[in-house]
Amino acid sequence: MPRPSQRLLSPAIITEAAIESVDESGDFTMPGLAARLKVRPSSLYNHVSGRAEIVELMRAQLMAGIDVESASGSWSETVSALAAEYRRSYAAHPRLIPLFTAQTVQAGVAFTLYNALAQAFADGGFDPAQTLHAITTVDSFVLGSALDLAAPDVQWASGPEANDAMKAALATSGKNPERADAAFEFGLRVLMAGLIAQAPEPTVS
Amino acid sequence: MPRPSQRLLSPAIITEAAIESVDESGDFTMPGLAARLKVRPSSLYNHVSGRAEIVELMRAQLMAGIDVESASGSWSETVSALAAEYRRSYAAHPRLIPLFTAQTVQAGVAFTLYNALAQAFADGGFDPAQTLHAITTVDSFVLGSALDLAAPDVQWASGPEANDAMKAALATSGKNPERADAAFEFGLRVLMAGLIAQAPEPTVS
Repeated sequence: MPRPSQRLLSPAIITEAAIESVDESGDFTMPGLAARLKVRPSSLYNHVSGRAEIVELMRAQLMAGIDVESASGSWSETVSALAAEYRRSYAAHPRLIPLFTAQTVQAGVAFTLYNALAQAFADGGFDPAQTLHAITTVDSFVLGSALDLAAPDVQWASGPEANDAMKAALATSGKNPERADAAFEFGLRVLMAGLIAQAPEPTVS
Repeated sequence: MPRPSQRLLSPAIITEAAIESVDESGDFTMPGLAARLKVRPSSLYNHVSGRAEIVELMRAQLMAGIDVESASGSWSETVSALAAEYRRSYAAHPRLIPLFTAQTVQAGVAFTLYNALAQAFADGGFDPAQTLHAITTVDSFVLGSALDLAAPDVQWASGPEANDAMKAALATSGKNPERADAAFEFGLRVLMAGLIAQAPEPTVS
């Protein structure tokens, strides 16, 4: 049978190609995706409205990989579990992160995570403004930690520029992922201790 | 006077062009830089050894913009001030962040910041392993917060997918930079409260 001259396209195929492109080069373009998929650029527009929609499709794909349902327990246990899941999903594609943060979150599935965080902080007695700040704090720490998990085995070259305190700290460093995992666990514990200290008494419901 | 046919090059000029390229497209290539500077690719190699050195030059430039000397006071006041300075410098070029985190820190000037953080945590009584984790925690939170400062005015589109807790939180959101600044101040306060709670008694020196 002859192969079709026009490759089958779908939003999922376009999303996958865009993720590959960002993993390789930090970005994607519509002409670049068309070349990668061996189609005409105009064919892409039969399936997606453009660049912004593709970014949201990529966000939706990573967010869909986050297991929100398993996060349970107290509000702070829930936040901890969500943060760990969120980092795990994003660490596979760290170069997507600045594209995501540069665009308004629209993907419906992304709200599954943010809704769960918002509910947990509300359960902890945080008012709506504090809840927004707390979600942003967790978001920033997780995205930075996902980038750190993608760092090279040797994060800092210990040279003559390091002072004694930094040299001693670097001498304790393991390799990734152990180094980044240990730092994330330490940081998450610190962050949660700070949030718990900040939490008002929850209202009785 | 005739213009020289070969534009003057220097590491600083190459670094500036690479930063422009990353700001625009998320990455740079040696041929792309050569085209941007209207020189032959081989000319670049008279000034830099290649891509990795350019990334370190870009890191050095951003790190040199951080005022480390002004951070003073107790160890926790010092860490707070360094974190705020670090975020301010990186927020101007958020798309550089994943390039930096993907490469071992070599730039000598970068150690000015990390040395100051290491000394502050050592002053707070953290042992070397905890100091490394604490530096990484601050690093992750600051880099995530720098990305957040570069986010659009509307970070989340509040739609039917948002639950009541998330809708209430989003209703309190201002625009950037006020929104991101308020979230960073909240998060830094939370993080420092957690670090202070984690700090051992400092040894008398």
